[in-house]
This record gives sequence, structure tokens and C-alpha cells, in this order.
Amino acid sequence: MPYEFKIQRVVEFNETDMAGIVHYANFFHYMEAAEHAFFRSLGFSIWTQHVEPPVGWPRVHAECDFKSPLRFEDEVEVHLLVAEKKSKSLTYRFRFRKLNAKPPLEVGRGLVTAVCVTQQHGKMVSTPIPKIIADQIEVAPPELLQ
Amino acid sequence: MPYEFKIQRVVEFNETDMAGIVHYANFFHYMEAAEHAFFRSLGFSIWTQHVEPPVGWPRVHAECDFKSPLRFEDEVEVHLLVAEKKSKSLTYRFRFRKLNAKPPLEVGRGLVTAVCVTQQHGKMVSTPIPKIIADQIEVAPPELLQ
Amino acid sequence: MPYEFKIQRVVEFNETDMAGIVHYANFFHYMEAAEHAFFRSLGFSIWTQHVEPPVGWPRVHAECDFKSPLRFEDEVEVHLLVAEKKSKSLTYRFRFRKLNAKPPLEVGRGLVTAVCVTQQHGKMVSTPIPKIIADQIEVAPPELLQ
Amino acid sequence: MPYEFKIQRVVEFNETDMAGIVHYANFFHYMEAAEHAFFRSLGFSIWTQHVEPPVGWPRVHAECDFKSPLRFEDEVEVHLLVAEKKSKSLTYRFRFRKLNAKPPLEVGRGLVTAVCVTQQHGKMVSTPIPKIIADQIEVAPPELLQ
Repeated sequence: MPYEFKIQRVVEFNETDMAGIVHYANFFHYMEAAEHAFFRSLGFSIWTQHVEPPVGWPRVHAECDFKSPLRFEDEVEVHLLVAEKKSKSLTYRFRFRKLNAKPPLEVGRGLVTAVCVTQQHGKMVSTPIPKIIADQIEVAPPELLQ
Repeated sequence: MPYEFKIQRVVEFNETDMAGIVHYANFFHYMEAAEHAFFRSLGFSIWTQHVEPPVGWPRVHAECDFKSPLRFEDEVEVHLLVAEKKSKSLTYRFRFRKLNAKPPLEVGRGLVTAVCVTQQHGKMVSTPIPKIIADQIEVAPPELLQ
Repeated sequence: MPYEFKIQRVVEFNETDMAGIVHYANFFHYMEAAEHAFFRSLGFSIWTQHVEPPVGWPRVHAECDFKSPLRFEDEVEVHLLVAEKKSKSLTYRFRFRKLNAKPPLEVGRGLVTAVCVTQQHGKMVSTPIPKIIADQIEVAPPELLQ
Repeated sequence: MPYEFKIQRVVEFNETDMAGIVHYANFFHYMEAAEHAFFRSLGFSIWTQHVEPPVGWPRVHAECDFKSPLRFEDEVEVHLLVAEKKSKSLTYRFRFRKLNAKPPLEVGRGLVTAVCVTQQHGKMVSTPIPKIIADQIEVAPPELLQ
């Protein structure tokens, strides 16, 4: 059962700022891209319309440690690990590696907790993760999460 | 009847790129901010939920000429002028001025055409501009649009 | 001596996502906007070119807790508090309040640590906060940071 | 000699807005991504540091026509065609196709003119395109540009 996923990206020009490095808020975009690709790898969309009721996954917590900058056209690997699985939420850890460094260099670490919600009367209400999804996701082994 | 509107902004760090200037795609954000503030000045929201049926305003065309760069913390004025008013669309011209230049400097010009649409079966369909909105908007005098 | 600052913003359309709420990464833009306005209120730019050597402030850590969503045209107050002041870094806490809720509603809390750096041979190297800046910033009283 | 290039992307969540579609300013990001990948395919970076003097490519004009919306997880092809090649500038046309439509659907067209510049005393000054770059780029046949 899957507990991890990796994506690769090339840093785009519009992701940089005047300091010549990737603007830090974009690391949160990178994490989200990995999370959504992870869901697609399981046959789902994060915008889960094919369960009843449809569910979404807003964040309740997000954080990132920045160790070393990324620059335009750097190749970055985003490594997602499932760190926690509760009845209504999933917590992911992320490791960012600059692949074009020799050797590849860890440039940051992140953590995101997303809650499973449905829409009720225009409001988001937390709800148990649908079984069809929960059954396919497990927590990564502790040694990978250190 | 209103045919123009001005907003001012201070360039934010995340709007710059590694060239040290405002990333050009942000000029389209600036135009949109002026358009939405113009609607608010008329008592409406661009996300118009209080007419029946609710209408939205997707763009069908957008363009911008860039004459001089904007940098972090520059003060920019975005001047919206209504250039064309059709039964189902509005076209705006925009002028960007850097206010902290001496004298203030025109740094760009833009043009956006937005179409009035409703949602029908999950699709956007063009629709006449609601009278309550159309009655409040007029085209700017030709001499202002040159 | 200043230890806090507040800014107000109106949520822009391009800050929302298909869930109909402000995309969470934009909370980090909001925090940054408050931090930079705080520096301007002290007479500085965060892109500090008028000290020798020039210094910048990359983030080493950023986090945010999201309690309640923000939507298009919501009025949001971003309240910055200086939480920690070290020789080479500043840590800020942030509180987000939705002002158009009745009563105003805290919708999130954030925390950012920024390190003072100079450029040396194309690399960012941490450096003591210039005295002219450090002298103007103090840590907020503990009761405000709870 | 190359006169075209294609990239494919999957629409990301943060590229959508509350209308449920890709925010229009992101089409300009897509065009830029194709332009930069085109340069990489020629062995260059758009941030061209290995010619003397180094050159950059700010836009002087950008426009886009939007025919049909893109949504989260749509697969989009961005097709770049070199439309004009002057001594100091390049103009590209772009076609956006939604590949997961059956049959694939053209959803938009764009045009960007970028000028070759060097930095002189902190200002961008237009300069002839370096021969090593110009020699590798040709204008697309007229029948492709219709």
C-alpha cells in the first residue's frame, strides 16, 4: 500500500523573486503538486467528485524549513511521505532535493495536514475519509520519517 | 455615469522575478484588481450573485504593452477606462503609471475584454449584461482613450 | 520601540482557487506583505540597500494554521508581532482576522523566521542584523504572543 | 533550424480560481514556460549568462485570446511558433490545446514579443540578439502561423 510519492520539476522563471531564488511561498505549491500527483497515482483526484458526497482537502496546517535556495532551471525532487493518517485527516512530510547539485542536496523540508471535508450549505464540514481512499493509503515506516 | 476608475498599489516582493522587476504576468493581476474595484465602486461585485441569474466575467482577450519596468516598492497607479460597451461584453483600457518617478511615468498600457456569462449545466454561456449594471457604466470620451 | 504592525487587504480574485476560498499559499504572501510594510514603517526597506553591506531577509522557517476560510472581497487584517529577536534573525507571529465577519473572526495564525544575510561571491551568508535596524525593533510583550 | 516547440502540462490546483477554471493570467505563465523550454531545447537558458555580455528577454507585448476554459487536471499542450525575428527581438505565437478533450480542443491563442537586453548601469538596454542564438532560430512557415 502506498505511503510515498516523488515528483520532479524544473524551477520556472515566474517562481523566482528579485533575490534571484525561488520565492518561498512556491515551496507550498510544490508540496501541493506532489500531494495531488500522489492522489492521481492512486486513481483519485484530490478534488474527489466520484465519492458520495464529494470531498475536498483544505489544509489546516502547513510549514516548511528552508535550508538552501533553489534557482531558475534547478531540478527539484519533491518527496511526499504519509506521516499520519487519522479518521478525518492526512499529514504529509515533504523533502525537497536539488537534483542538479552534485551530490543531490536536500534544500528543504515541509509538513502539511489536510482535512477531508464536504460542503454543507456552503460551509466546509470535516468528514471521515471515504473508505475507498483510506484503504489505499498507509503511514510511511518510522525510519523514513526521521 | 462612470467610465473610469483608478487604484494605487505598492509593488510587493512576491510580484518581482529574478530580473529584479515585476513579473509581466502580474500586470494582468493589476488590471483585474482595478476592474473589480471599479465594480465595487458601483455597488457591485464582479462575482455578481445578487442579480438573477448570477453572472461572471471571464476574459476573452487580454493584452499589455510594457514600456518601462516596475520594481519592488514602486507605487503604481492603474487607470481603468471603459473603452467599449456591447450587449454582452465590456472592454477596458488600462494605463500604468509609476507614481514615484519624477515626473510620474507611464510604464505600460493594457486592454481586456470580459464577457458577461451565466452558468448553465456546468458551462459558461454568454448573456446580456444585466440592466442594473449596464445602466451604470458608460464608454469613456474618445479623447481619453487615445 | 515597535514590536507590532497591522495591514488590511481585500481578498483579490486571483488569490482564490476552485474551492472558492483563498488558496492557502497566499497566506504566506499576506504575511510577507505585513513584514515588508512593518519595515517601511520603520523607515527601511526589507531589501535593505542603504546599509553597508546591503542585507536581505530570506526565510528559514514559515508555518501557518488555517482555522476558517477567506473568500473573494473579504477584508482581512494581518497583525504582525515580533516574537523573537536574535543577533542574526527575527521571528514574527501573525494573526489573520476577517474584519467583515460580525464580530471579526480570527481565521488563521502564522509564524515566520527570517535570517539577515549578505551576498558573498553569489552566496547568501548570514550576518548580524545591522545596528540601525536592530535598535528599532523589540520583542512584543509575552501576553500579546499567547 | 527550429521554429517551434511544444510542452505539455497538467493544470495545477493553485492555477484555478473561484470560477473553477484556470485563472487567465496563468496562460501567460504557460507561454513563458514554453518559451524557456524552447531555449533549453537549443542548448541555451533564457537567462543567458554564457554570452558576453549576458542578455535577458523582457516582454514588450503580450496578449492572449481565450476561447474555452481549462480546469484542474486538464492536460494542456502549449505550442510555440516563432512568428517574427528581428535584430533585437523575437515574437512568438502560441496555441493552447486541451488534450483530454475528444477530439483535442484549441482553447486559446497567444502572442508575445520579447526584446533582447543587456544590463547597463542598472538599466535594461536593448541589444542585438547574440549571433550564436540568432543562428539557431528561424521563423515558422507562414502556413503554420495562420
